[in-house]
Amino acid sequence: MEQQTHKNKQTLSDCKSSQASAVPKSAGRRRPQISVPGYVEGILSGNRTTLSRAITLIESTRPDHQSLANEILEACIPHVKQAIRVGISGSPGVGKSTFIEAIGQEIIQQGNKVAVLAIDPSSSQSRGSILGDKTRMSKLGSHPEAFIRPSPAGTTLGGVARKTRETILLCEAAGFNYILIETVGVGQSEIAVHSMVDCFLLLLLPGAGDELQGIKRGIVEMADLVVVNKADGERVQLAKQARRAYKNAMHLFPAKQSGYITKVMTCSALESISIAEIHAEIKQYIHFIQANHFFETNRKTQRKYWLEESVRSLLLQFFKNNKAIAEIYPDIERQVIAGTLLPFQAAEQLMERLR
Amino acid sequence: MEQQTHKNKQTLSDCKSSQASAVPKSAGRRRPQISVPGYVEGILSGNRTTLSRAITLIESTRPDHQSLANEILEACIPHVKQAIRVGISGSPGVGKSTFIEAIGQEIIQQGNKVAVLAIDPSSSQSRGSILGDKTRMSKLGSHPEAFIRPSPAGTTLGGVARKTRETILLCEAAGFNYILIETVGVGQSEIAVHSMVDCFLLLLLPGAGDELQGIKRGIVEMADLVVVNKADGERVQLAKQARRAYKNAMHLFPAKQSGYITKVMTCSALESISIAEIHAEIKQYIHFIQANHFFETNRKTQRKYWLEESVRSLLLQFFKNNKAIAEIYPDIERQVIAGTLLPFQAAEQLMERLR
Repeated sequence: MEQQTHKNKQTLSDCKSSQASAVPKSAGRRRPQISVPGYVEGILSGNRTTLSRAITLIESTRPDHQSLANEILEACIPHVKQAIRVGISGSPGVGKSTFIEAIGQEIIQQGNKVAVLAIDPSSSQSRGSILGDKTRMSKLGSHPEAFIRPSPAGTTLGGVARKTRETILLCEAAGFNYILIETVGVGQSEIAVHSMVDCFLLLLLPGAGDELQGIKRGIVEMADLVVVNKADGERVQLAKQARRAYKNAMHLFPAKQSGYITKVMTCSALESISIAEIHAEIKQYIHFIQANHFFETNRKTQRKYWLEESVRSLLLQFFKNNKAIAEIYPDIERQVIAGTLLPFQAAEQLMERLR
Repeated sequence: MEQQTHKNKQTLSDCKSSQASAVPKSAGRRRPQISVPGYVEGILSGNRTTLSRAITLIESTRPDHQSLANEILEACIPHVKQAIRVGISGSPGVGKSTFIEAIGQEIIQQGNKVAVLAIDPSSSQSRGSILGDKTRMSKLGSHPEAFIRPSPAGTTLGGVARKTRETILLCEAAGFNYILIETVGVGQSEIAVHSMVDCFLLLLLPGAGDELQGIKRGIVEMADLVVVNKADGERVQLAKQARRAYKNAMHLFPAKQSGYITKVMTCSALESISIAEIHAEIKQYIHFIQANHFFETNRKTQRKYWLEESVRSLLLQFFKNNKAIAEIYPDIERQVIAGTLLPFQAAEQLMERLR
């Protein structure tokens, strides 16, 4: 417990130092420097303090930190054991942290090690969603078999997603065999999370219709498992109704590439009702896609996707950082939006300047 | 009628000449050359032969054709009158051409001029879907107030989409105030069509569930109007059931940005049942979004989207055409897919070579 508190403190200070690229030298002096083999050994032995510091290097914008992080990652890759990666999405208020607290403990009870990560591109302002949730995930957070890491700061979703993907690998190298990735249910972050997990779980509120406004278009169809949370007290009937409505709606959707039919379940994370059943369903889904090889195909598709995404994002950065482009872009964009200049012709003018 | 046949023939030969960049000189000799003002005058006066030839220039890969097309487009832009642009999507076999034949005639009967275009990225092999459909759309095709153009050939969806977008503008300049854009319901083409229309209509088959496998994920949620076709004979009950199921499912989806609630209707394109009602619903939707200004906001968003898409596509082309990149890309990609090289690090290596 003493050590855990210490770890939490370090995570917090690590986060701060990763925020700015100009970190005062004193920040480094507070802790002894670790060599790359030292980092790798610590991570592979499951030392969470070392893992935490390595993640901080991944999240840092300092070039020396980044090259150190790359060396550590490269050395860890051969040792990565395939964990089960589960994405957890849902509108604010659906009870994501309570759910993660409940299912995380259930997963640990079955003899597993759980890492909880988050993607929240808005966290550069808000300092991360799990940071606040961590106090709420008090039981899971203090468990020796759990590792909770707040959402990395970042200005672009692509940047945040890359950091999370690399963090997953380090957690897997450190022996965590379940990775839960929370996303806040706004914007494109679900698509990013969906592209890095094996199982995408969507949490919903009891009742159907209006209260679901917060869920973005297309998210329901991405789910491998739909769970209506807060099926407790007076809401049990409402939850059952919602479950029925979603179950019917699922039939209208096209078949999933995995060949699996998405189940719709109810649970109460608060009262730990049906949490074991949800874990069993996740395992059944994973077994199914391992047996029909979708698991590995999907991972390969994801890796190819992230290569292409990374190329696209670096190309765009290269384009935007070009001074000749930056000078004329706003005016060109204005003309296109007004309809006086055609998009493709505008893009060609811009590319002409780039060359 | 005589003139119409002539027009169709020309469209066909135009298409052929746009297929290859090395067009024999004799192809040009068959028709007198038209100057840019001649093109513009012809288009603005509604001459469909001139319109057809100008579209062929848009579709051509010859640089001189492209620059001529750009001049014509630029000269036409100030004269473009805002038409109602309707996207029509649905699986093969849902009866898209019969539906377009029916609603096209209904729209013309109300005093409008209709242009029918198509997006089918697979058409570079199959020579276009409407080309075959054209014979089936015999009544609409021979109508003096209608203009039917097959899907442009192209190797990339982006290229095909650009040609269609530019063709829309020429059709609008030529006085067509309804543009129907058919898409074949495979892959990303719906998203492209959705990004160039004011109203996205999805056609479905009677019954619910299995038979809808052909519809890609996320498409139902994009629809501004859902129509269950083939509600005739013994299928009337099945169609009603499907309508009910979809209507219930619609409530589960998040609210649309337009603020409009997507209606689910039934029709029989073959027996012209409820076709007038569907046209009325399209008009009601358009009035609604004109009144709340979503119409104009959406058009501006679409123009911005196409600028960004064009930039992205030209950047990627620039990247792929780079010899130093092409040499190493397959090997880098192989390593990423195998999981031995991280996506972002791979992308950085590639960018290093580009610089």
